[in-house]
This record gives sequence, structure tokens and C-alpha cells, in this order.
Amino acid sequence: MKGRKAQRQRLALIAALVCAVLLSDRERQAVTIDRTFMAANYVGDASFAFTGSLAAGLAGMDLLGCNLVGFITALGGGTIRDIMLGRTPIFWTTMYDEALLCIVISTGAFFGLPYLANRFGITAEGEFVFWTDTVGLAAFAVLGARVAACLPDHHVHAGACALCGLSTACFGGLVRDILCQKPPRILYAEHEMYATPALLGALVCVWLLRSGGERPLDVEGMLLGAWVVIELRVLALNHGLRLPSFPPEVAAQTARSFESELESAQGLLSPRPPMAS
Amino acid sequence: MKGRKAQRQRLALIAALVCAVLLSDRERQAVTIDRTFMAANYVGDASFAFTGSLAAGLAGMDLLGCNLVGFITALGGGTIRDIMLGRTPIFWTTMYDEALLCIVISTGAFFGLPYLANRFGITAEGEFVFWTDTVGLAAFAVLGARVAACLPDHHVHAGACALCGLSTACFGGLVRDILCQKPPRILYAEHEMYATPALLGALVCVWLLRSGGERPLDVEGMLLGAWVVIELRVLALNHGLRLPSFPPEVAAQTARSFESELESAQGLLSPRPPMAS
Amino acid sequence: MKGRKAQRQRLALIAALVCAVLLSDRERQAVTIDRTFMAANYVGDASFAFTGSLAAGLAGMDLLGCNLVGFITALGGGTIRDIMLGRTPIFWTTMYDEALLCIVISTGAFFGLPYLANRFGITAEGEFVFWTDTVGLAAFAVLGARVAACLPDHHVHAGACALCGLSTACFGGLVRDILCQKPPRILYAEHEMYATPALLGALVCVWLLRSGGERPLDVEGMLLGAWVVIELRVLALNHGLRLPSFPPEVAAQTARSFESELESAQGLLSPRPPMAS
Repeated sequence: MKGRKAQRQRLALIAALVCAVLLSDRERQAVTIDRTFMAANYVGDASFAFTGSLAAGLAGMDLLGCNLVGFITALGGGTIRDIMLGRTPIFWTTMYDEALLCIVISTGAFFGLPYLANRFGITAEGEFVFWTDTVGLAAFAVLGARVAACLPDHHVHAGACALCGLSTACFGGLVRDILCQKPPRILYAEHEMYATPALLGALVCVWLLRSGGERPLDVEGMLLGAWVVIELRVLALNHGLRLPSFPPEVAAQTARSFESELESAQGLLSPRPPMAS
Repeated sequence: MKGRKAQRQRLALIAALVCAVLLSDRERQAVTIDRTFMAANYVGDASFAFTGSLAAGLAGMDLLGCNLVGFITALGGGTIRDIMLGRTPIFWTTMYDEALLCIVISTGAFFGLPYLANRFGITAEGEFVFWTDTVGLAAFAVLGARVAACLPDHHVHAGACALCGLSTACFGGLVRDILCQKPPRILYAEHEMYATPALLGALVCVWLLRSGGERPLDVEGMLLGAWVVIELRVLALNHGLRLPSFPPEVAAQTARSFESELESAQGLLSPRPPMAS
Repeated sequence: MKGRKAQRQRLALIAALVCAVLLSDRERQAVTIDRTFMAANYVGDASFAFTGSLAAGLAGMDLLGCNLVGFITALGGGTIRDIMLGRTPIFWTTMYDEALLCIVISTGAFFGLPYLANRFGITAEGEFVFWTDTVGLAAFAVLGARVAACLPDHHVHAGACALCGLSTACFGGLVRDILCQKPPRILYAEHEMYATPALLGALVCVWLLRSGGERPLDVEGMLLGAWVVIELRVLALNHGLRLPSFPPEVAAQTARSFESELESAQGLLSPRPPMAS
């Protein structure tokens, strides 16, 4: 009951915020939005670095490993996006802010976890980090998609823009999981949806950005995209939404037919068995 | 018996095709070849996306995971090549066709596998997919090597061109295996040769492309390169050809001497044992 | 006793070498240093390719796998650095020397290991390879950092320069471990420090390179940076220096609280339990 009420309150809050921003005059709006997303971007960096560093620490890595993994979790996705788009040197090699934030947060998480967990109840799976992570996911997805959509001299199509948003938001975590030798979380259906909200939000954002004609719908696209990410992520967690995966019986059956295929495959194209026409 | 006959027929067919193309006049030739390789490229995209999506599905990934892995299997190799050569933004961010094909095929494979397997007998290990995969391997290796060889403003040496061909053809599958947490198939000798034909075909293609002097042997290089890939791949499967790997006794012996080395290594440079001169 | 004496002799030797170089006139100095570092770079390429190829061979890979892994171990780090900095096409695609050296050494290691091990006592863990590896580590870290610091048209900040040095020196080995499906050695505290000396040496080098004002301290930076790497690496091995890692009890406690968090997390934001405000 109370959960549902909380959700409604949250919706109302976001709607009010969006309205407030959209009703104000156009220029102040753009500035406000840019500042808001920059702040959300920092929140995301910090949150991703925190969870990355903790995942690395719990996997047994040392201080340098935790710093590297935290750094990659936070900035790796944007790095992959920029490499694919040719935006080099990568942003964090020429600007201090995000790289420094990641290092500070990763080191802080490494040394401060027991204190944080005992004093503030902050852990990688708690509600506080869920919200910072979701805000970061939304900011990363929207900003990543926008970077691709506004690439000078080249027209990146909407699908690739959405993929760039997805990459910014989720590929850092993908590399983190590979470095920790775990199955990449975003590819599996074991937990509720994580990458899908980011992809859909990025797609919505790009669609609005591109559909404005003379008066580009920058602000609307970014806000609506971020809202889609946050809303879908909360819905996914609340209702345990997952994408479909191969039903086990199909997997088992296919695996069986694979084995028999494999046995015959070794003789398949060889001279012996009389089967090739 | 029949298998050998089939192989001869295949050889004759390819030879005839090659002759037919090479005997026609030069300009129509180039156009025909370009179209043929473009079609082979699509066949390869579809085939790689199909096997990638299936591998992901059988590893337990969800719909998004299958799409991402299928996409990466098909286009990841070319992406790595273009990143190394500095051809950014990557081709599939500005052109729809290949990206869309991969998404459609990956999703189709995800949902349609039981139907395909029952109705048409199409599985990732069957003969049909072997042929589409081999055609794709040849097209990817040759086109990848050619892209590197024809890079404007820079002279990429033949070895790197061949490596670019190998990358285009095989590194998508390498990343797929890492994402599925399996040993990368192309690095091991458990199955018959897969990457070696691609590497040798790419090398042959580059050698001919570069050796033409005034009249570049584009067409000949691409055809001969592709033929080398296909022929070697079929030979490898028919005769179970594998590259050498460390004999188990060497591995075991080295591992043993490693252990004793390791034990002494901890004291090796340390002050205690009187062994360093 | 003798070990300590050996270490002092080594220190004296390096100090003498540094003095000799720094006392000679400025121009000859720069040339000498460049040649020395180029030689050290080749030593590093060969050493990294050797250990990479052996690691691949012992993991069961075939000849091509050993070559690829040896190549990636030696040149992968520099490749990642150049991709991040936008220095494309990657250096080894337009210059033969390093790529060829890696192929020759990888193939030689693959076929010649038993001979090398029996005749010369050269194994991946022996003292000879420790020294070539350390020389390579120092050269890679310093040269990588310098490449980033001297990037034309862009100002890469000191932290990113040091990270580029670390990448050049250690990320090839990181990719090797991932390809061999082992925990990446540089991220864990199981062995003594390996990446930290490279990072600190790169940082020292950049700091001197940047602090020269009108008369840039190129030579001093490179020499001091390399000395820091070598000295720290030897100290780390002699005294078993490691970075801190999560104490097991924290990891266990956090894992436990994770589990209970996780159980409640599934209901955390869902409507049922009356906990969200």
C-alpha cells in the first residue's frame, strides 16, 4: 500500500519537475537542464565507481584493482562510445573532474565500506545506491545518445545513437563483470531488466531530438528519455520484469541435437559417410 | 566416395565461376565482384548473427543479450579493425543495412529456433550453417584485408593487412566466447582450424592486391583469397586439420618446473638464500 | 647476505649509468637515451611475447593462439593507449619491427621451450625473464606516459598520462589473462606488486617532463621514471610487497549483509512490505 503511494508521489514529483522546467522560458531551461544532467552525470560516476570498487574488492582485488575496476565501471562505457564515434582523445584524458571523482570514490569505498555500511547503511545493494545508480543510468543513457546524435560532420542513425546511449550506461558494468570473471549481468535474465530501460530511454531521447525540425526538442528529449529510464527501471524492480530467455527445454533439446550433430559433423563433410549429395 | 565426388564438383564449380568472371571484360568484372562480395558479406553477417544469438541463448542470456552477442559476433570484428585503423565513426553507426540485418536475424534466431530446427533442420552446427559461415568467413577476411590495404594516406604493411582480415573474420567470435565465458574457440586446437584459413586467405589477397604494379590485381586477389579461405576450411573439416599445440608432457613438465621455480623464486632475489651472485 | 650485496651493486650500477649519461653533453645525451629506451622497448616486446606465448601454450592453445596472445601481451597495451589517444592507425600496422619481433619470439617460444628450458634454464618464472620483463615494464611505462604527455594539439593531464603508461605496460597482460580465462594478475594481491611500480614510475616521469619549464627535463624524467619502476619492482619481489586488499572478514560480512539485503531488495520497492515511506 505504502509502496504504491510512494510510487505515485514519485511520479507526481517528476511530472511537476518536468512541467516546471518546460514552462519556464527557453534559454534558462536549456541551462537548467544542462546543469541538472551534469549533476546527474556526477552522481552516476560516483555511484558506478562505488559499486565497481566494491565488486572488485569482494572479488579479492587489491587497492589498485578496485580503483581500476571502479574507474572502468564509471567511465568505461563512455570510453567505448567515444572510441566507436572517433571522439579522441577520450574525454577523461583532457578533463580532470570525472576521472578524479572516480578515483576518490573508489578509494573511499575501498577503505570506508565497513564504516559506510555500519553508520549509514550504505551498501551496493541498498535502496540509496539503487537510486543513485538509476539516476546515473538515466543520465548516462541520455547524454550518450545525445553525444552520438550531435556528432559533427557525420549523421549517426537513430539505432546507433540508442546503442551509444546503452554503451555509455551499461558497457562499463559489462567490462567490470568480465574483469571480475562473472557472467555479464546485463546480458542475462537472472535479475530484473537493467539495460533495456537504458536502451529504450536512449531511443526515446534520440527520437525527440531528431523530430524537432526547426525547433529541436533537446530539452524535451532529454527529460522524457531520462524519465523513461527511471520509470522502467523502477517498474522492473517492483514487478521483477525480465526479458524472455530461451526456455530450458529448448536449450536442453538443442544441446542434445547439437551433440548428435557434432558427432555426425565430424564425419559430415568427410569422404566416408555417403550423405553429401 | 560420394563425399570426395562432392568435393571435386565443388572445386570445379568454383573454378568455373572464377574463370567466367575473369574472362569477362575488366569493368563489368569489378562490378560483379563487388556485388558478389557484398552479398557474401550479408550472408556472413546473417550467419554470424545467427550462431552468435544461438550461443548466447544456449548460455542462458535473454533477448537483449542474444541481440547484443549476435550483433557483436557479426560486426565486432570489423569494428575492432576499424578502431585500429582509425576509420571512425564505425561503419555501422552511419549505415543502417548491416546493423538492421543483425538485429533482425538475432531476434529471429531467438524466437524461431525450434521452428527452424524442426522444419528446416537448421541448427548452428548443421551443414547449411557451415556453408553460410564459411562464405561469410571468406568475405570478411578478404574485405577486411582490402580495407586495410587501401587505407588512404597511410601504408599498412602486408602483415597488418592480413591481421585486419583475421580480425574482421574472427574477433567477433572471440568476443562472443569471452562474453559467454567460454574458452575462445579460435585460439584452441580442440576443433579443426578456423582462424588459420582466414589469415592465409587474407595474406594471399593482400599479396596479389599489392603485387599488381600499374594494373592492380584487385579482382584476382579477392577471388583467390576467398577461394583459399573456403578450400582450407573445407579441407580442415574433412581431414580434422589442426595446428600444433603444446604436447601434454611438455606442459606438465613445464608446469612442474614452474612450481619449483616459483618456490625458489620467492627467495630468489630476497636476501636470505645465498644464491644470487 | 649475498643477495643484499647484489642489490647494492645493482643500485650502484644504475646510479653510475645515470650519472654517466647526465654528465655528458645535452644532445648526445638525448640520442643515447632514445637509443637505450628503444633497445629496452625491444627487450620488453620480446619478453612479453615470450611469457604471453608460454602462458597461452600452457593453457592449451595452438600455434596461432600462442602467436596472437604473445602479440597482444606485448603490443596490446600500447594499442589500447593509442586507441584512447586517437593515434591511429596503430603504430604496429605501419611499422614492421615490433610486430615481426613478437611473431618470431612467440613462435620460437612455442617450438623452442623444452630446448630453452633444458639448455639455458630459461622459463617464464626464472630470474632471466624477471629482468627482461622488468626492463620492458620500465620502458613501456615511461614511453607510454611520454607519448601521452607529448600528444600534439591536446593537453592530456598528468593523471591520464600516468594511466597511459600503466596501460602500455600492463594492459597487454590483462587481456592475456582474460583470453586465458585466468583472474587478471595485475588486479589481484596474490602476487607482489606489478602494476603499481609502473604507475608510479610513469607518474614520476610525467611530473619531471612537465616541470621543466623552458628547458624540458625529458632525459631526467625518463631515467628517473624507469629507475623508480625497476627499483620498486625489485623491492616488491624481495620483500613480497603487496597492496592492501579487502580483509576476508569484511568481505564475508558484506557478503552476508548483501544476501539479506538482496532478499529484502526484491520486496524493497515492491508494493507489499510497508517500508518505503
